[in-house]
Amino acid sequence: MAPFQETPEGAAPIDSVPLRFGVVLYPGFQALDAFGPLDALNALSLHYPTKLYIIADTLQPVSTKTPQNFEFPASSFAQSIVPTHTFENVPEIDVLIVPGGMGNRPPATMDSVINYIRQVYPRLQHLITVCTGSWLVAQAGILDGRKATTNKASFKRIAGLCPSVEWVGRARWVVDGNIWTSSGVTAGLDVIFAFIEKVYGEPVAKLLANWLEYERHTDSTWDPFAELYETQ
Amino acid sequence: MAPFQETPEGAAPIDSVPLRFGVVLYPGFQALDAFGPLDALNALSLHYPTKLYIIADTLQPVSTKTPQNFEFPASSFAQSIVPTHTFENVPEIDVLIVPGGMGNRPPATMDSVINYIRQVYPRLQHLITVCTGSWLVAQAGILDGRKATTNKASFKRIAGLCPSVEWVGRARWVVDGNIWTSSGVTAGLDVIFAFIEKVYGEPVAKLLANWLEYERHTDSTWDPFAELYETQ
Repeated sequence: MAPFQETPEGAAPIDSVPLRFGVVLYPGFQALDAFGPLDALNALSLHYPTKLYIIADTLQPVSTKTPQNFEFPASSFAQSIVPTHTFENVPEIDVLIVPGGMGNRPPATMDSVINYIRQVYPRLQHLITVCTGSWLVAQAGILDGRKATTNKASFKRIAGLCPSVEWVGRARWVVDGNIWTSSGVTAGLDVIFAFIEKVYGEPVAKLLANWLEYERHTDSTWDPFAELYETQ
Repeated sequence: MAPFQETPEGAAPIDSVPLRFGVVLYPGFQALDAFGPLDALNALSLHYPTKLYIIADTLQPVSTKTPQNFEFPASSFAQSIVPTHTFENVPEIDVLIVPGGMGNRPPATMDSVINYIRQVYPRLQHLITVCTGSWLVAQAGILDGRKATTNKASFKRIAGLCPSVEWVGRARWVVDGNIWTSSGVTAGLDVIFAFIEKVYGEPVAKLLANWLEYERHTDSTWDPFAELYETQ
């Protein structure tokens, strides 16, 4: 079959780019934190032979419903995603995506996620977080002394909990070395396209953003939510 | 427990708004077509006792992988969502969301989805489509003589296949009666916030968009992709 979409000139060669992706899920993850980046990468999979491992504590479907029952009483509104691997049996990956979500707050125990991030990070080419996903990475000790950002509504709380991180209060996303942290929820779309542009080439990022009909924020310091939530 | 977020003044009263949502899924649906609107509605579920029914042919998880294998050879990059109901046993709903996706193209058979849309529509308060979801609604005959839009990369093809619809070539979204159709993929975020604003109140839409750190397009005629894909 002819390719669905021609790969543009200027795309990075297949043998030069990371192809093995992982995403960690936990109960009460924020759906769009995961599915913003994942759907841009779904589109990338039309052009590169990529693999995705969906990683969780067990192979049971993981729900967006918060274990803390933050939802309105009597609400029954959630989506469940099927993991492909557990933390115990996930293959080697090149890029890890860590979504945020209300479900990562106490009394939830995030030890398995945090331990996995800590042990896999030295072998990653890139680590990408959305929203409070950066809080989990911070708890793994990987952000100590590094620049990073997070969800702006949770910024002050998280900055107070993890003072060893150089938190950036006005940022759609922040890159420090091979760690890409982004602000709340929809900022995941902007960080993933910045990542695709850098790694797979500008023509690829442009093609895929146009295909998702997404008007990117290409300035990483664009952040009207910094004023709104008084993070700077 | 105290509410996670205070419901703002000016929010529509609970007994005045639709609370029962359905989303139809099929193999090869576009993830973000579904999860853009759904995650805004996840946030709405912090304020209203909403219900979500995830509806498919069977209760087996539904994959974003296209049955037509549009992905790059050797790609293995997909997410699977667990339905809660089938077309045969779904309870009554007030609002139906229909995502698009490459998987709805021939030779895939979309009869069960189209038949469900046709039979449920007379009892809906609102019908919302994203991307080529409007093509499925058009095939159900419901858009005949109505204004609607769709994914702009697929616009000419779909307009040619369904000439009885008054397709709007420049539109982020279109409202005709109780049918809200939107353009490609990320346009689903703008149509759902327009819907939330209209039905649940402007303060609710504003709070939730800020919480998702989403800069809405509030002009339904904003559409740079009309020029790009020459749909007008």
